[in-house]
Amino acid sequence: MTSIEKILAGKYPAKAHARKVVAHLRQNGFEGDGVIYLEGQKTRMVEDDDTEQPFRQRRYFFYLSGCLLPDAHLAYHIGTDKLTLFIPPLNPESVIWSGLPVSPSEAKERYDVDEVLFTTDINSTLAHLGSEVGKSGFVFAIEGQIADDISFTSFPDTDVVAVKNAIEECRAIKDAYEVAMIRFANDVTTKAHLAVLKAAKTAVNERELEAAFIGTCIAHGCRELAYHPIVASGTSSATLHYVDNAQPLFDASTNKKKLNLLLDAAGEYKAYCADVTRTFPLSGKFSPQSREIYDIVLEMQNESLALIKEGVSWEDVHVTAHRVAIKGLLKLGILRGSEEELLEKRISSAFFPHGLGHYLGMDTHDTGGHPNYEDKDIMFRYLRVRGKLPAGSVVTVEPGVYFCRFIIEPYLQSPDLSGFINSEVLEKYWEVGGVRIEDNIHVTKDGYENLTTAPKEAAEIELLVNGA
Amino acid sequence: MTSIEKILAGKYPAKAHARKVVAHLRQNGFEGDGVIYLEGQKTRMVEDDDTEQPFRQRRYFFYLSGCLLPDAHLAYHIGTDKLTLFIPPLNPESVIWSGLPVSPSEAKERYDVDEVLFTTDINSTLAHLGSEVGKSGFVFAIEGQIADDISFTSFPDTDVVAVKNAIEECRAIKDAYEVAMIRFANDVTTKAHLAVLKAAKTAVNERELEAAFIGTCIAHGCRELAYHPIVASGTSSATLHYVDNAQPLFDASTNKKKLNLLLDAAGEYKAYCADVTRTFPLSGKFSPQSREIYDIVLEMQNESLALIKEGVSWEDVHVTAHRVAIKGLLKLGILRGSEEELLEKRISSAFFPHGLGHYLGMDTHDTGGHPNYEDKDIMFRYLRVRGKLPAGSVVTVEPGVYFCRFIIEPYLQSPDLSGFINSEVLEKYWEVGGVRIEDNIHVTKDGYENLTTAPKEAAEIELLVNGA
Repeated sequence: MTSIEKILAGKYPAKAHARKVVAHLRQNGFEGDGVIYLEGQKTRMVEDDDTEQPFRQRRYFFYLSGCLLPDAHLAYHIGTDKLTLFIPPLNPESVIWSGLPVSPSEAKERYDVDEVLFTTDINSTLAHLGSEVGKSGFVFAIEGQIADDISFTSFPDTDVVAVKNAIEECRAIKDAYEVAMIRFANDVTTKAHLAVLKAAKTAVNERELEAAFIGTCIAHGCRELAYHPIVASGTSSATLHYVDNAQPLFDASTNKKKLNLLLDAAGEYKAYCADVTRTFPLSGKFSPQSREIYDIVLEMQNESLALIKEGVSWEDVHVTAHRVAIKGLLKLGILRGSEEELLEKRISSAFFPHGLGHYLGMDTHDTGGHPNYEDKDIMFRYLRVRGKLPAGSVVTVEPGVYFCRFIIEPYLQSPDLSGFINSEVLEKYWEVGGVRIEDNIHVTKDGYENLTTAPKEAAEIELLVNGA
Repeated sequence: MTSIEKILAGKYPAKAHARKVVAHLRQNGFEGDGVIYLEGQKTRMVEDDDTEQPFRQRRYFFYLSGCLLPDAHLAYHIGTDKLTLFIPPLNPESVIWSGLPVSPSEAKERYDVDEVLFTTDINSTLAHLGSEVGKSGFVFAIEGQIADDISFTSFPDTDVVAVKNAIEECRAIKDAYEVAMIRFANDVTTKAHLAVLKAAKTAVNERELEAAFIGTCIAHGCRELAYHPIVASGTSSATLHYVDNAQPLFDASTNKKKLNLLLDAAGEYKAYCADVTRTFPLSGKFSPQSREIYDIVLEMQNESLALIKEGVSWEDVHVTAHRVAIKGLLKLGILRGSEEELLEKRISSAFFPHGLGHYLGMDTHDTGGHPNYEDKDIMFRYLRVRGKLPAGSVVTVEPGVYFCRFIIEPYLQSPDLSGFINSEVLEKYWEVGGVRIEDNIHVTKDGYENLTTAPKEAAEIELLVNGA
């Protein structure tokens, strides 16, 4: 067993998460006793059809249960530290079609909870708990996630806001079990990235590479992907959220293989996500311009990583990446002017228009980042994490440089800004499309652990595309 | 180009479908002029997350447009035979992330419509059409699929029921283009079934086989699956809708390879589904009991197919399959008694508990079948098509024989019924699990075309598992 497997052989720490959430509620002034009541996602049907929608567990519920079953609920009694999971009772009609469901004793074995009851026992349990919490006792739940037939009348008070916020804040800091889950998702993701590198030489269409990626994830235990993969060949790689993934890998007019593939794709393991981007030459050899841009982006990532440890300001790291981009693009002659002026005028945002990264966990864009999408400053508007990084957070570090006409042309047409860009030099780079390199970083007291293991050194990925 | 590719190189026949739907409305008494207004599926976000849900186009909208874009709408003016498609206008913020959307001129080129406007023009267009349809003019729409900001006030009358029913009835009879789509989905599905047969010898877990299936579908142009695959090894194949797909292919106690794999899985091509099941021996050689059951099920399918042509009663075909099952199970000694008595007492429903098949099209369980799930007769309760099959319909023919304790044991415990089953002989068959063989059949005037091309002869699939 690897060290990850050892950790994951234990139960998901639902009880510890419940206590952590309560500690957060206490820090925000909650005193006395109460109950946290959360509902998992229901089985939902496809519109106008008799089949089920793909199931995605509610993250708030999962955080306090570790349970991926549909139609389950939980109640955590703060005073007695008792966590009760409610699962659907056996439905004989459904057994004929779907087999026997998990029993309460199996569920108790599987999950870190004190008791497992059927969902038919929820209201009687809540009535009893309501009588136990005392006169100032609360039931905490989440607005819009309380079934119509649930009754809180036995509780003196109800709060449908605080626990959602508390869980979102707690989720930002991962424990060892959660880090192991993200690491597992990363290990599978690496296998899938390697499968794409291997398939790239002979594939003729993006969808074959997407197929190699998804197939490898499923075969190795990531039945779900963390997000819709971006499999972008040639200049499509300049489209940040390209998801068509059905274009030929050859240029229709020249019948030559397109330059690069940008692959932003990752597996999800039991609700925990990886998020990994690699960019590689479809021919097995970077073009000179592609390699120049690749080296800049890798340097952006390396200099960003060097800063990461508990307490670092994410804005500072983001600006560092921009400075590396500016220096690199100045050196290539694409930009003109001084580094300070280019930074001040936000010229590098024309080439690196998104944020450096985001928290990662049960959501690809995880909670607790406090972004400000209304920020007037274009350099920070799309930054999904603001402020200092705490130890235990997991953040993506994903610099990129893109040659996207739709984004850059307004700069070229602006009398104020066009002087900073040498459009003649730029002309040689449109074909590069975009380069992004993205790793998942676990922030520690003194530095970081890189949870991503997919290769990214230019020479190594060239060798891998060539079948080494 | 194959003949299928030639058909599919043309446009999806949206206009012909609109006329067909109007003809159906006319048959049901509608006179005068009117407008059919339909909305496509909207972009919807994952709950508590900032990513989009997987997109599935509304089938009613697709039938009259052939358009898979999200957030689109259509209006068909019956009097002038004019079909207008409305697509979302360009949103500069979204172009930065997602690239340029389809333009109206590109959409007009791509779809079988007379005009393409932006969705911002819907209400003015409807106001104009309302003034054209005259005093007794209707707008036909679908309840629950009309956006809040849509106004029908210019129309004398609104009907939110008839057009849904009309489309559901029309969909039951496929035109050549639709049959070509189902055939294409079947051809890709065959490739994927073959990939699983090839992978079966070395795979150790169901998920590897699911991965081979899904990867092959995506690589060959079916980005979506028609339904969640059933990849059921050993006795899990007796669970009709098994979707866990994560069990080892070896028995944990004996460490021997399980007997069979039941694979019920198919691709979807541009909203049209295949639906194909095969059962094969994981070792490359059927066990004697498995082969006996396999031969019965294949015979059930062959005798059913022999009856199929325009006007055949689906109940008759279903009963024929039951009769073949009864004869076969009598011969093996699993059943006791006369064929007529066993049929009358519905004993074969213990082994073949589901319907023989269902219509297939844009939904896996397609519209127009008029099932009666309240039927007191257990043999017909789950039959998803009732009555006579029209020429042009596409129906699945999917007999099965299962050894499912949860279904069979009540028969064994019934004083009235237990005498019909020889539990001693039955004992040898539990390990077989379930066998199902499913093809997609296009009903014609004189017979049928089998759209499914995946191999199913016992000797051939044994050879394929063995790498031939």
